[in-house]
Amino acid sequence: MQLACLDLEGVLVPEVWIAVAEATGIADLRLTTRDISDYDELMRHRLAVLDAHDLRLPDIQAVIATLEPLPGAAEFLDWLRERYQVIILSDTFYQFADPLMAQLGRPTLFCHQLEVTDDGTITGYRLRMADQKRQAIVALQSLNFQCIAAGDSYNDTAMLAQAEAGILFNPPQRVVDEFPQFQVTWSYSELRTAFGQATRTLAGC
Amino acid sequence: MQLACLDLEGVLVPEVWIAVAEATGIADLRLTTRDISDYDELMRHRLAVLDAHDLRLPDIQAVIATLEPLPGAAEFLDWLRERYQVIILSDTFYQFADPLMAQLGRPTLFCHQLEVTDDGTITGYRLRMADQKRQAIVALQSLNFQCIAAGDSYNDTAMLAQAEAGILFNPPQRVVDEFPQFQVTWSYSELRTAFGQATRTLAGC
Repeated sequence: MQLACLDLEGVLVPEVWIAVAEATGIADLRLTTRDISDYDELMRHRLAVLDAHDLRLPDIQAVIATLEPLPGAAEFLDWLRERYQVIILSDTFYQFADPLMAQLGRPTLFCHQLEVTDDGTITGYRLRMADQKRQAIVALQSLNFQCIAAGDSYNDTAMLAQAEAGILFNPPQRVVDEFPQFQVTWSYSELRTAFGQATRTLAGC
Repeated sequence: MQLACLDLEGVLVPEVWIAVAEATGIADLRLTTRDISDYDELMRHRLAVLDAHDLRLPDIQAVIATLEPLPGAAEFLDWLRERYQVIILSDTFYQFADPLMAQLGRPTLFCHQLEVTDDGTITGYRLRMADQKRQAIVALQSLNFQCIAAGDSYNDTAMLAQAEAGILFNPPQRVVDEFPQFQVTWSYSELRTAFGQATRTLAGC
């Protein structure tokens, strides 16, 4: 039995931190896992920038509330959910993702939590576990699921490698160059085709 | 981080085999895991009855297409999905569940598959794994989720025992008597309250 695992930002929704950077005019918040592959280093940078500008969780949630899924993402996800059980594996935080997940019909999301004080100051973040995307694939495989995974950036590559089939979607060129073993897709149409091909290959057709 | 795991039949949707028994008038199909706790024995009985009456997958799917979720189930599930990531753990089959899952907004479902020939004859079933409900809880706990699980019958009790909190929903009296360790709820209102209590207990509030 096959299961689909998808990254969230860059695959179904915009990069939240880039949207916050644009809304606040703080260019320092534009960096993502596409730019800094060490996630902890990236997050410590972001929290320091927020602190320096006295930006709190409600400020960021106000920006996220204006975002929408990427054009075509909801339709793609509906198509996928008619054919596979789907789990979203993301390094975002539940406090950020919720309004976007509601717009996507609330697919199951495994991600992380921010540590927030009563006045809304983000004091840190709690990773549910290290290497969670790959570990989720391992756990699902232990339940006799075959996993077809798709993502766009550095923090997806361990997940794609662990899955029975791994697909890149709109990746930056440096990820394409570093990970030539993964099929690359540039549109939801191509991603649908890649899922269909992976399914047939895994089924031995 | 907490995650909600729900049984399907008897909790969110009617018992499919009972509906088939009623639509076909075959009383032999009325037995469920509420009556026979050995699932393999129950399934071999069902497939033998289907074979004796020349009932095929499309006949059963035609009955299932007339079913709806239990009254209040969709609203309860929407409430739950706003508060928890939800995974449905069921011993049904994907070929049966699909029209009901569509009506429920396609929550993620872990279940089994029927073996079906080209003419629609159900020749057997393939359990994705033995003890899958409890094993799913174990796998999710390995991802550092705490699980709150709810179900109604024998085949849920191992899941309820493995979870950090286990809740019975509309169980038969014999299950209540045999498993006094689990809280019993008789309505979605009580089930919501039980989830809220479990969340506060697990959070140490």
